[in-house]
Amino acid sequence: MLIVQKFGGSSVANAERVFNVANRIAETYRNGNSVVVTVSAQGDTTDDLIEKAKEINEKPSKREMDMLLATGEQISIALLAMALEKIGVPAISLTGWQAGVNTDSKYGIAKIKRIHTERILSELDAKKVVIVAGFQGINKYDDITTLGRGGSDTSAVALAAALHADLCQIFTDVDGVFTTDPRICPDAKKLPEITYDEMLELASLGANVLMNRSVELAKKYNVNLEVLSSLKKVEGTYVKEVTKVEKSNVRGIARDNDVAMISVLDVPDEPGIAFKVFSMLAKHNINVDMILQSIGREDKKDISFSVKSDECEDAVKLLSENNIIEARKIVYKDNVSKVSIVGAGMVSNPGVASMMFEAMYDAHINIHMICTSEIKVSILIDREYAEKAVRTLHEKYNLDK
Amino acid sequence: MLIVQKFGGSSVANAERVFNVANRIAETYRNGNSVVVTVSAQGDTTDDLIEKAKEINEKPSKREMDMLLATGEQISIALLAMALEKIGVPAISLTGWQAGVNTDSKYGIAKIKRIHTERILSELDAKKVVIVAGFQGINKYDDITTLGRGGSDTSAVALAAALHADLCQIFTDVDGVFTTDPRICPDAKKLPEITYDEMLELASLGANVLMNRSVELAKKYNVNLEVLSSLKKVEGTYVKEVTKVEKSNVRGIARDNDVAMISVLDVPDEPGIAFKVFSMLAKHNINVDMILQSIGREDKKDISFSVKSDECEDAVKLLSENNIIEARKIVYKDNVSKVSIVGAGMVSNPGVASMMFEAMYDAHINIHMICTSEIKVSILIDREYAEKAVRTLHEKYNLDK
Repeated sequence: MLIVQKFGGSSVANAERVFNVANRIAETYRNGNSVVVTVSAQGDTTDDLIEKAKEINEKPSKREMDMLLATGEQISIALLAMALEKIGVPAISLTGWQAGVNTDSKYGIAKIKRIHTERILSELDAKKVVIVAGFQGINKYDDITTLGRGGSDTSAVALAAALHADLCQIFTDVDGVFTTDPRICPDAKKLPEITYDEMLELASLGANVLMNRSVELAKKYNVNLEVLSSLKKVEGTYVKEVTKVEKSNVRGIARDNDVAMISVLDVPDEPGIAFKVFSMLAKHNINVDMILQSIGREDKKDISFSVKSDECEDAVKLLSENNIIEARKIVYKDNVSKVSIVGAGMVSNPGVASMMFEAMYDAHINIHMICTSEIKVSILIDREYAEKAVRTLHEKYNLDK
Repeated sequence: MLIVQKFGGSSVANAERVFNVANRIAETYRNGNSVVVTVSAQGDTTDDLIEKAKEINEKPSKREMDMLLATGEQISIALLAMALEKIGVPAISLTGWQAGVNTDSKYGIAKIKRIHTERILSELDAKKVVIVAGFQGINKYDDITTLGRGGSDTSAVALAAALHADLCQIFTDVDGVFTTDPRICPDAKKLPEITYDEMLELASLGANVLMNRSVELAKKYNVNLEVLSSLKKVEGTYVKEVTKVEKSNVRGIARDNDVAMISVLDVPDEPGIAFKVFSMLAKHNINVDMILQSIGREDKKDISFSVKSDECEDAVKLLSENNIIEARKIVYKDNVSKVSIVGAGMVSNPGVASMMFEAMYDAHINIHMICTSEIKVSILIDREYAEKAVRTLHEKYNLDK
């Protein structure tokens, strides 16, 4: 099998951990597999480099920032190659550009466009473990780019896609994907399998195991993912296209505390109002998640929506200063949480959503907003009840069984 | 003018120093020059990286070591570019491979073969200061190589040669090249000019301002060098092909304490003996400097030679264990120093060498060995008299005038 393995920065934070990772790779290699590894920068390296930059220029050019940050992964790959050599496994490290990782030119948030796999393939032919710097690539000007948050996951999935790998293993500090956060709900169970879409919803809903970009990419190229522990040697959760259909359609409960709710009250009930509100926010890079628009009455309506907590203030300020929308009042709540149930078959099972509302009613938890999609139902509730809601729902849908 | 400037690792060790360097570059740029800069890794970065590697593998592959070490300069160039941007000077950083620095494949001690200057020239055309990572290049396999000790000086000179620069300025922590070490002889004078050959002899004789490799390269491609202070804004020493011929031919006095003398006594006076001794040493990578062979008498002769201090023990052991040379006795002195007078016109001025011996005689300093070349005379004396010898010779040749 050709297997791509990805290890995060904390997995390689010091020499001892580098050897743990090396032993893990060695085992896969000695079982007769071809292995490509991507690895992030060690521990706090990236933060330290950002600190160094800020000391010199609080707003450095993004190109130079990428030039700087890319060194973090370059250090990791060299050290990991040395560790593998030390334990007798032939290995070679490759930077993003050496591995043929071509990206667009958006420094700091670059997207992989293509991977020229010749070099990797020839090193695999030579029976070497190929260690590729995650998080980085090269653009058409031959300049170094970085992929932004969670970039190493994206690198791993993109490599697996380009190499037609049999499996892409993402090693993390958790054992896999759980029915909900085990810290909130001790009965949470590890899921043996999950679909890409379910994983996408869980990720976007605050179960931060994998960044969405990498799951989207895996879905697009049908890459078999496994999310597993870098410490324990147990099977993780497989993320793939089709999983066996089960009767219980809810697969997991997610919670996201990084949410604020904003309501724009009494705006004119006329076409273009929603457009004005959300295009203004978009222009200022404020991402809106859930949206609720009331039915118009007396030529007025209300629009409510959720944003990330740290963008709430900016959004409110922006809307207040621009009276093009002629709102009577703008109010916000920044002490809310989003709780969601996720599962692929939910949409064809109308009872699922109402069970959720029933559970909230029984638990005396007030729902501020509801938002549904093909495979999830999300509700916005007061943050103080979020953990209670997760535990209630986990039990309600028998996820602990 | 097109000027290449080189700054060492201590010049960019922290944010404040990075700005000092940036201001120095900015001044050159604002005077209407095109500027290409090479810079070493910050302060102890390289040592820290070596430490990290040794923790994992005490004998890592040289390829991976170069992959690791090259990050040091990549960090420096990015930070320096950010500092220049901060003070309003357009700048761009380039790694060795981006700058087109092609080397052979001897990892750790690579030699520059060619520099493809297209990228640098196009950035210069765009009125940018181009900051090139020193010490590194890329080989024919697209793998990163490093140039070994003093590599950034070599990078600077090679860039100046490839770009046909008008001047290559090497910024150091001294004001230039002196007639001798100012710490030994307070009367030492800064030389306004010196020839490549004189510089080569001074460097190899322990006046460690510039590594020999870079001076050799400068000589080969006729690159005008200036060695100057990174702190004071005064002219340094120009190193070039022809300097004005002066009456006094001695330009400087050098001292090297890193010397030991070994004598192999009573070896057979027959062909091949010197070959056996020195080929054996060469095979074990022990470099021999001065060699003295006595005239044979009674079928026996003595061979004396000097080596670096830390290779003395190995050399003695090696010769003792191999009686192919049939020496009666092997003796060594590790408390010696080499003191040399250097000057381009010396050879045509026979009185110069004898003045040296006269001065030593007057100062009651015994000479163990003498070695002459086109432009230098070196003597080996007891280390305790080395500084006295330097001061005596400095005065004798009127270098303080």
